[in-house]
Amino acid sequence: MSFVLPHIRNLPRYQTGKAPRPGESAVKLNQNENPYPPSPRVREALLSADPAELRLYPGESVEELRAALAAMHRTVPGQVFIGNGSSEVISLIMKVFVGAGGTVSLPDPTFGLYQTAAWAQGAEVCRVPLNSRYEVDVDRVVASGGQAAILVNPNAPTGLLLESGRVVELVSRFRGLVVIDEAYTDFAPAGSSAMELVEKRANLIVLRTFSKAYSLCGARVGYCVAAPELIAALNKGRDIYNVNALSARMALASLQDRDYLRETAARIIRTREMYTRRFEGAGFRVLPSSANFLLCRMPEEGGAQEALRLYEGLSDQGVYVRYFDYPRLRDKLRITVGTDGEMERLWQVLESLMQRV
Amino acid sequence: MSFVLPHIRNLPRYQTGKAPRPGESAVKLNQNENPYPPSPRVREALLSADPAELRLYPGESVEELRAALAAMHRTVPGQVFIGNGSSEVISLIMKVFVGAGGTVSLPDPTFGLYQTAAWAQGAEVCRVPLNSRYEVDVDRVVASGGQAAILVNPNAPTGLLLESGRVVELVSRFRGLVVIDEAYTDFAPAGSSAMELVEKRANLIVLRTFSKAYSLCGARVGYCVAAPELIAALNKGRDIYNVNALSARMALASLQDRDYLRETAARIIRTREMYTRRFEGAGFRVLPSSANFLLCRMPEEGGAQEALRLYEGLSDQGVYVRYFDYPRLRDKLRITVGTDGEMERLWQVLESLMQRV
Repeated sequence: MSFVLPHIRNLPRYQTGKAPRPGESAVKLNQNENPYPPSPRVREALLSADPAELRLYPGESVEELRAALAAMHRTVPGQVFIGNGSSEVISLIMKVFVGAGGTVSLPDPTFGLYQTAAWAQGAEVCRVPLNSRYEVDVDRVVASGGQAAILVNPNAPTGLLLESGRVVELVSRFRGLVVIDEAYTDFAPAGSSAMELVEKRANLIVLRTFSKAYSLCGARVGYCVAAPELIAALNKGRDIYNVNALSARMALASLQDRDYLRETAARIIRTREMYTRRFEGAGFRVLPSSANFLLCRMPEEGGAQEALRLYEGLSDQGVYVRYFDYPRLRDKLRITVGTDGEMERLWQVLESLMQRV
Repeated sequence: MSFVLPHIRNLPRYQTGKAPRPGESAVKLNQNENPYPPSPRVREALLSADPAELRLYPGESVEELRAALAAMHRTVPGQVFIGNGSSEVISLIMKVFVGAGGTVSLPDPTFGLYQTAAWAQGAEVCRVPLNSRYEVDVDRVVASGGQAAILVNPNAPTGLLLESGRVVELVSRFRGLVVIDEAYTDFAPAGSSAMELVEKRANLIVLRTFSKAYSLCGARVGYCVAAPELIAALNKGRDIYNVNALSARMALASLQDRDYLRETAARIIRTREMYTRRFEGAGFRVLPSSANFLLCRMPEEGGAQEALRLYEGLSDQGVYVRYFDYPRLRDKLRITVGTDGEMERLWQVLESLMQRV
């Protein structure tokens, strides 16, 4: 006899990228973390925090963050929901809008957490294959029905951006809720965000995170913007005090340093473009990325075996990239864009592994 | 047409104690927060934290905390689950063990969040009334069935402790899962915890928090100890990276300062006992509390009207206590034990309000 619900018992555990052993100095390019530290203002926020305030439940600092986010997106606080990382927002979307027995449409492949979060709520997943160019197939998503459709844009792990016109089309034509996860939007061309659509569409949730461009993975802050009815539902479903007081302060501090964000994002984009050309020069096929990672298909004769060999060879030498044992991804490596130094190290190890064949 | 699932649409929002306006210097005795700041080691942990590490997903610090908790409770890390406050653990229990259509048994009244968390998952609640002395009725809980039974011990908002013998009986006789929430255990007599039962019973989850005796409400860290199968299920259901890196460090720092915890808890207990006598002297009936709050019934002629009058009168003068518009609680106030100074202020306002009748 088990006390665990059957759909949880049968749920495969979500696989995250491998963490280096404590103390190991690895080049970590496997979780799309930002290679640059958060804004110096985050340190100031930490140093000026009064630990005595931690005796109280979070309140003021979360509301200040909400107000700042609302101002940034030219909306009101009642249209902003803040979560313990966007992963909490993803789970809550499944909990309050999809539910046990509901269906969510997912382009395939996409960020794997959506499938896990849906299954964990006893929901069904309808996978809609990306087309031959790895683009999201809007017509097929629209046709798929379901309580909600997810669009990660730029998509992960492809890095591909769905252009604005097609995004508008998806939101207009899909009959359920459309969730657009813009985790990587700060690395994409200006004007590609769907944020401004929120005011016009009652079925749209736009999701953002402080984990990527803001470099605050460790603080766990994500948020979404949507119609007040949808935000109210998320608030009902969430845990009380889901965002901690210090993380809210740090997120607010980083939000107020837009110059730093722009500068570090631009650096990452430069490195991304440089290495796109380098990988292509070495025979890899690289999908055009609008994110902070590259999805690289092995050179001609390669395939899954070669991708796995390179993945393991890199890992043995302390360079962590991501290999997905998943259809259409087995002949590819996903490589987070690091600093130029980290990428140079990756490149050296990769070259030595490729010469060794 | 609504995108929100019906059971969420109909869910009453969980009511937390009123927060003072920003900048208002209130005496806040309405959320069972600790009146003393967290251990000085928390400040050290904050000052020694490297903000650059926040660019990475949490890992090491959470594992260090897990190992320390396992050592403290003489168990292994695989039997410890850490959550974003115990409120996350409560939601997860409903998600992975009870589920839509399942039933959870709740002594009534108890901590209201359990009911909200159950309903938010589409689960049913079976309320088992406390007996005439406000004690948990073990026989009726056992008879109630359900996937899980909750025992908050000491209970909230009564403050009453169910003695160990009866706890053992409940865990042995109840056929489902038993969740014992020991949020207030550090204010209870030694030997009243069920933690050591975990090794013997596969159906027991013991829940703790850093929000009360550790004075870290703002950091959002709770945890539970249970059999490995139950912990594995919680891990499958949780959000990836549910605990942030800094909060894990602060919790670890406070855990390592047991002397400070013992000293501040002892101070709170002394204040509690002093004010129990004072309230009783003024005609209130005070339930014998093993927690950091007092549930006080109005003197003879009082009742709900008087409780509400005092609640509002206190609130008008910046003293926040808790009033529950709920059966068997309407003629009572729940008062968090503050510092002696805060309690003295409460006492003065209360006396002036009572003389004014």
